[in-house]
Amino acid sequence: MQRLDEVAQFSEGGPGVTRRPFTDEHRRANQLITTWMQQAGLDVHIDAAGTLVGRKAGPPGSKTLLIGSHQDTISHGGKYDGMFGIALPILVLESLREQTLPYSVEILAFADEEGVRFPTALMGPRVLAGTFDDANLQKTDKDGVSLAAALSEHGGDPDSIAAAKRNPGDLIGYLEVHIEQGPLLESLGLPVGIVTAICGIERWTVELTGQAAHAGTTPMDLRRDAFAGAAEIALAVEGYCQAMDGLVGIVASMTLSPNVPNAIPGKAAFTIELRASDDLIREAAASALTQWAEAVSKRRALGCRLTKTYAQKAVPCDPWLRGTLVRSLTHHDFRPHRIMSGATHDASAMADLCPVAMLFTRCRDGLSHHPDEAITAADAQASAACLAAFLQMLDSD
Amino acid sequence: MQRLDEVAQFSEGGPGVTRRPFTDEHRRANQLITTWMQQAGLDVHIDAAGTLVGRKAGPPGSKTLLIGSHQDTISHGGKYDGMFGIALPILVLESLREQTLPYSVEILAFADEEGVRFPTALMGPRVLAGTFDDANLQKTDKDGVSLAAALSEHGGDPDSIAAAKRNPGDLIGYLEVHIEQGPLLESLGLPVGIVTAICGIERWTVELTGQAAHAGTTPMDLRRDAFAGAAEIALAVEGYCQAMDGLVGIVASMTLSPNVPNAIPGKAAFTIELRASDDLIREAAASALTQWAEAVSKRRALGCRLTKTYAQKAVPCDPWLRGTLVRSLTHHDFRPHRIMSGATHDASAMADLCPVAMLFTRCRDGLSHHPDEAITAADAQASAACLAAFLQMLDSD
Repeated sequence: MQRLDEVAQFSEGGPGVTRRPFTDEHRRANQLITTWMQQAGLDVHIDAAGTLVGRKAGPPGSKTLLIGSHQDTISHGGKYDGMFGIALPILVLESLREQTLPYSVEILAFADEEGVRFPTALMGPRVLAGTFDDANLQKTDKDGVSLAAALSEHGGDPDSIAAAKRNPGDLIGYLEVHIEQGPLLESLGLPVGIVTAICGIERWTVELTGQAAHAGTTPMDLRRDAFAGAAEIALAVEGYCQAMDGLVGIVASMTLSPNVPNAIPGKAAFTIELRASDDLIREAAASALTQWAEAVSKRRALGCRLTKTYAQKAVPCDPWLRGTLVRSLTHHDFRPHRIMSGATHDASAMADLCPVAMLFTRCRDGLSHHPDEAITAADAQASAACLAAFLQMLDSD
Repeated sequence: MQRLDEVAQFSEGGPGVTRRPFTDEHRRANQLITTWMQQAGLDVHIDAAGTLVGRKAGPPGSKTLLIGSHQDTISHGGKYDGMFGIALPILVLESLREQTLPYSVEILAFADEEGVRFPTALMGPRVLAGTFDDANLQKTDKDGVSLAAALSEHGGDPDSIAAAKRNPGDLIGYLEVHIEQGPLLESLGLPVGIVTAICGIERWTVELTGQAAHAGTTPMDLRRDAFAGAAEIALAVEGYCQAMDGLVGIVASMTLSPNVPNAIPGKAAFTIELRASDDLIREAAASALTQWAEAVSKRRALGCRLTKTYAQKAVPCDPWLRGTLVRSLTHHDFRPHRIMSGATHDASAMADLCPVAMLFTRCRDGLSHHPDEAITAADAQASAACLAAFLQMLDSD
């Protein structure tokens, strides 16, 4: 906890923490993380993508377990999102410094997960997975500095991006420890949880067109009220998702026209977002709900335009790594609760390279991306104990 | 119809008609209306409030029937709202020019019903009823011209406002012919309808407060989604009003916060507007629906702030005048359909002075306050026939 407070000082200014990639704050954070890594006996270097890497070598020819998260934050974020998943594994490796593991471990402090400075994100994992698009190197921040220039100045190497791709055959997998960023563990009274999958996401825009009209002179049965249709669809989305495990959905971003107290809304535009740990469940929900939207619109004589604006597949966590996490939690008498990750993580991109798994730590009030983001020292300790057990139980064959 | 096209030329410019009170367009419109009135044998003057008055005198000591509407329009309004209720009665009186009626008739062309130029409205009827607040005379338009100055220049007399109040004992009542401004008569296939009441109106603002949160990481059963609560309330308003005669209601003017696709709306602010021909029905609806809003909020753990922002009592039309309208419609084989006026009219303010009644004429597509506002010549003829019958059947005792 003390280390997290210390590294949180490297921020552009409060409230909360603002640390964008390849900045002076990033450089100073990396200096501190380097001292932590050295104290844990790790060999430290920066890779081509600007990821700070600390390696504990195993026996010659052994495979490598990657553990990591991101050093960057959103503007005015918290102390724990990302950095907790760097600081904690380093401490655990320090506690295991004298111990020989039958595999190598690398701690990865990725530069940029949030995508706040440049119009791209997840650069570190994508370079390792070989899925990074080089065209992103020419993208610039608001001051006109290119990603390539920022990376070079920071000790990365834009010209060696392709060579930085890792060989899946050398790797056991990738583990990420992260605060939950939601209220589920807190509501269940559990310090940690095991992620089943990083959810798939799809977004739709829905545009309903009725007839704007005077709300006094138009009888109820002659109205074509676009907002009433939207309300029905919103409640259907909520009801469907409430009835289905591993699926969440929201109707938001509502725009009415005209948006005045005494006119029947002629147009309602809004979004439906669905997230599920299983792509089939998400796709079935989208199919059912868009059909429902069309049925509601037909009954109400509304025009209905549905546009799928975004889709991202779910990333299932590896059953073998999850199994080891289950054993490490039960070893410490923690219930190995399964939890879907509703947010995207570095692990999402790492899944293109190797098996991934995630351990979630309870956070206060489900709050994240906020200056008041908080965890308890006891939960950090529980997470460390589980990670240490995981490392000792891991079958590296 | 030709006269309505002709007077519509006195407009600030298209599309549609824009004629604000006490302007050059108003002056020129009044000149034309004056020639119509003179052609109908009426004695013409402008009263203290700038209302153009054309009088057909009855026997000495007889009472007076007032008939009128407003000459002004909204910005880019239509040709019929207001002016139809001036032009039509003048034509009907012209057709009855040689006929002696057992009462006097005055046609009133009110200056300002819409309230577009000055931050006040319904000046003409309010002066007649003695309900005009003199403080309004100092209010100014966007060019800084006071209502008093505009009125004086136009031939009105700010100093004689109080003296212009009429004595109810001298009056039979006030009749207003107006386009429906809604789709009901068109949907029923009827050229005219008899207004039961000018609706009462009340408006509420509803502010629901839940918890803004990440729409991916917050499980469905731990959400406090302010918009989902709003959707339930909106559908309840719609359902209640659909079930009740003489009541309409709308939820509109919706503001969500945050209003982004991937966040649970923590706040939803919106309006509920209710209109009814019977104040008791409206008040019962408001009571039931606000209780429902509180119940929904409690079930969903939302904060709920309900504020009544506006209330205006219903103006019932006079049963005796309505009865004569019924006889005049059935005389011409038109079904005397009863219809609530969902909008406010000059008759609303005239009700403080004397009994009022209104005859509605079918308009195309329920469209009003729009350049495409339209009626047919046949429906204008039907309205004229009914008005002529009304004048001949009216019992002036």
